[in-house]
Amino acid sequence: MERKLISETPEMVGQSVKLAGWVNVRRDHGKLIFIDLRDRSGVIQMVIIPDKEEAYKIAKEVRSEFVIEIEGLVKQRPGGAAKAGIATGGVEIEVEKMNVLAKPEGELPVDISEDDFNLHLDTLLDNRVLTLRNEKVKAIFRVYSEVLKAYADFMKREGFTEIKTPKILSAATEGGANFFKIKYFEREAYLAQSPQFYKQAGVGVFERVFEIGSVFRAEPHFTTRHVNEYIGMDAEMGFINSFEDVMDELEKTMAYIMESVARDCAKDLERYKVEILPVKSIPRIKLTEALEILDKEFGKKMDAIDIDAEGERMIGEWALKEHGSEFVFLTHYPSNIRPFYSMPSADPQYTETYDLIYKGMEIASGGQRIHDYKQLVANIKKHKLKPEDFEHYLDIFKYGMPPHGGWGLGSERIVQRMLGLKSIKEAILFPRDVKRLTP
Amino acid sequence: MERKLISETPEMVGQSVKLAGWVNVRRDHGKLIFIDLRDRSGVIQMVIIPDKEEAYKIAKEVRSEFVIEIEGLVKQRPGGAAKAGIATGGVEIEVEKMNVLAKPEGELPVDISEDDFNLHLDTLLDNRVLTLRNEKVKAIFRVYSEVLKAYADFMKREGFTEIKTPKILSAATEGGANFFKIKYFEREAYLAQSPQFYKQAGVGVFERVFEIGSVFRAEPHFTTRHVNEYIGMDAEMGFINSFEDVMDELEKTMAYIMESVARDCAKDLERYKVEILPVKSIPRIKLTEALEILDKEFGKKMDAIDIDAEGERMIGEWALKEHGSEFVFLTHYPSNIRPFYSMPSADPQYTETYDLIYKGMEIASGGQRIHDYKQLVANIKKHKLKPEDFEHYLDIFKYGMPPHGGWGLGSERIVQRMLGLKSIKEAILFPRDVKRLTP
Repeated sequence: MERKLISETPEMVGQSVKLAGWVNVRRDHGKLIFIDLRDRSGVIQMVIIPDKEEAYKIAKEVRSEFVIEIEGLVKQRPGGAAKAGIATGGVEIEVEKMNVLAKPEGELPVDISEDDFNLHLDTLLDNRVLTLRNEKVKAIFRVYSEVLKAYADFMKREGFTEIKTPKILSAATEGGANFFKIKYFEREAYLAQSPQFYKQAGVGVFERVFEIGSVFRAEPHFTTRHVNEYIGMDAEMGFINSFEDVMDELEKTMAYIMESVARDCAKDLERYKVEILPVKSIPRIKLTEALEILDKEFGKKMDAIDIDAEGERMIGEWALKEHGSEFVFLTHYPSNIRPFYSMPSADPQYTETYDLIYKGMEIASGGQRIHDYKQLVANIKKHKLKPEDFEHYLDIFKYGMPPHGGWGLGSERIVQRMLGLKSIKEAILFPRDVKRLTP
Repeated sequence: MERKLISETPEMVGQSVKLAGWVNVRRDHGKLIFIDLRDRSGVIQMVIIPDKEEAYKIAKEVRSEFVIEIEGLVKQRPGGAAKAGIATGGVEIEVEKMNVLAKPEGELPVDISEDDFNLHLDTLLDNRVLTLRNEKVKAIFRVYSEVLKAYADFMKREGFTEIKTPKILSAATEGGANFFKIKYFEREAYLAQSPQFYKQAGVGVFERVFEIGSVFRAEPHFTTRHVNEYIGMDAEMGFINSFEDVMDELEKTMAYIMESVARDCAKDLERYKVEILPVKSIPRIKLTEALEILDKEFGKKMDAIDIDAEGERMIGEWALKEHGSEFVFLTHYPSNIRPFYSMPSADPQYTETYDLIYKGMEIASGGQRIHDYKQLVANIKKHKLKPEDFEHYLDIFKYGMPPHGGWGLGSERIVQRMLGLKSIKEAILFPRDVKRLTP
């Protein structure tokens, strides 16, 4: 008999079926034994009665996380009441045969069978290979995988070419402090903290490029929104009229991602009690205006023309209240807090740049870049950097580059904010921070 | 007027159009000036006549790689003869207005306008940001991007969940020699040379997982098929009956990739004079049998039960001649040349593993893995390794793991072999080798 998935059973009432998966939980009810079986498609309740002697004997021995294979009859469930969290609650399996494929070794450190799974972050992460098996935790990564897919699908639809750029670099540009250093044969090298230079080179080749790839940041952060390794969803596009074109594209991208997740991950969102608002027109406000709003509406004053995590949270609240939008663009950051390649605004104290705030947290940063060689050299000097340190980067602009811009979007932050996860680490299978390199 | 793409012009004869792109080449024919304009969609010939004074003056000044924007009239081309390599050969543009968006700085180091582009590898790579703009070189990366897309699409269709696993590891397992060392805050860490352990953990969560991600190998190779950083296309699947199931899945995956590229990159393949054979049943032969074939058919003897690059090339030839297949699986590698986690065969001298050879070169390696905790511990010891060095990896098997297996597939090698590129470095935008970390 060919193995079926648990999700197929509601269509198979009255038929024999072969299933395989993990024992989610086992309950001994006097004579009857109940086992909730879990496979990649869901969870189903199975009943083992003493008459099926061999199966019953095995069922007596199995415990949580045993890997088993069963054959049995799909039955309408008495009462028909759907059990909370079990999609196949309407049916159950009367087991005929049972076979153990693999046994756990020793005791399980945590019980992962609970629908409402609330562990301390360290416990959750220390036991990651086990805790990831919990249905509520798995839901996060189904959503995550949908975000990756939707992003790539939309980019291609919009004429962007997918590229993969090197993560090992010869020089720590853009300020060396945030780079991890590598021993590269007989010399030193650095891990890429963004594909910025390479995606700009990509504009010279394909006009529109995107990359989904590893980003490494050596920042000694201890916050709920930073990690030292994450997956960046980058894009860069040429022949723009202004950075408004870039924001238009990012707005459409976010609308598509939100729509895809809402459609394809409805059950996962339900588990987190989240409803996704459709993305319409995302408000775009100047950073200076945002600071006035913070002052007026929240009584918060910043020392400089900049915004902090609290300010982003407040401006997110404001955007939802005033514009009914979970997203808001903050624009025109001052040049002293933006990289040297940022296109200056008409007032050169500011730049044609933006951050995208989602539910009160920055998830993307971008803008228009300088495309003229001489202007770029001058701006490198203005930022007190040395043009000779950017030789290979500058080559791109020696060969003719159109006006262009783009963004870096943090894949995990989208999921963190969407599902309301306390820490970004919950949205990463095996997160890396200053203290954590395992598992 | 809204900018159109060059590929849209054949449908616009008699209409005015706005185009933008790079000057591929400019030819001054006495009074008339001809410019081949290049954008992301193709190349088109434009004519500038002296009557259009302003445009003519600008056209006199522009050179290769100037970024320009033009307005003009789409006309049927006199004679209608399609110019080789120009898809829009049937039409040309009579330019009305021309505007320079960006100028190159200084002389171009190489002429990239030629259809038949044959540079020395070092010249090609040293000037990468420019040489990538050549149409023949761009074709490689259109194919590459299609391979990535087809792989992801097929995996999802087959029920695999996309995962992203960490590239920074706490320990150099599987033998430390091939790992790059990183300074990670106050300690040392290593760059992942495969997502092996994490994708196996993924089987415990999702049964079927795949990853497209960076792989780092610190091997001091100087060959045409090795680089130190590449993009691995990995997969791992649970509840298999044997490693034949894994080969079945990989066979279907390769068939899908080949079909997708043949369909969507027909012009790019034509440029390389390549015809893709449909993938039917890929022959599976034991490594020991392959060695007999090498001896009998090619007079080649190996010192041990192993195969080298020349042997793979020969067995590829044999498979094409005998089976009409560009692919061949070599199976049952001896345990001493396979990793400790490989499932032993009935004869424990061998393993349930395989390599996939495509046009005479290994592009994938895989097999069934040991899923039983005790057997795995014993095999680690047998390989003269210490179980305590694999503490976190072993945890996976403490929690119940089904029989499983998978593969690691080199994305760039597929494209190298498909297009018949001499070096794998031609199939990577910005390759990394022992000597090369720039551009």
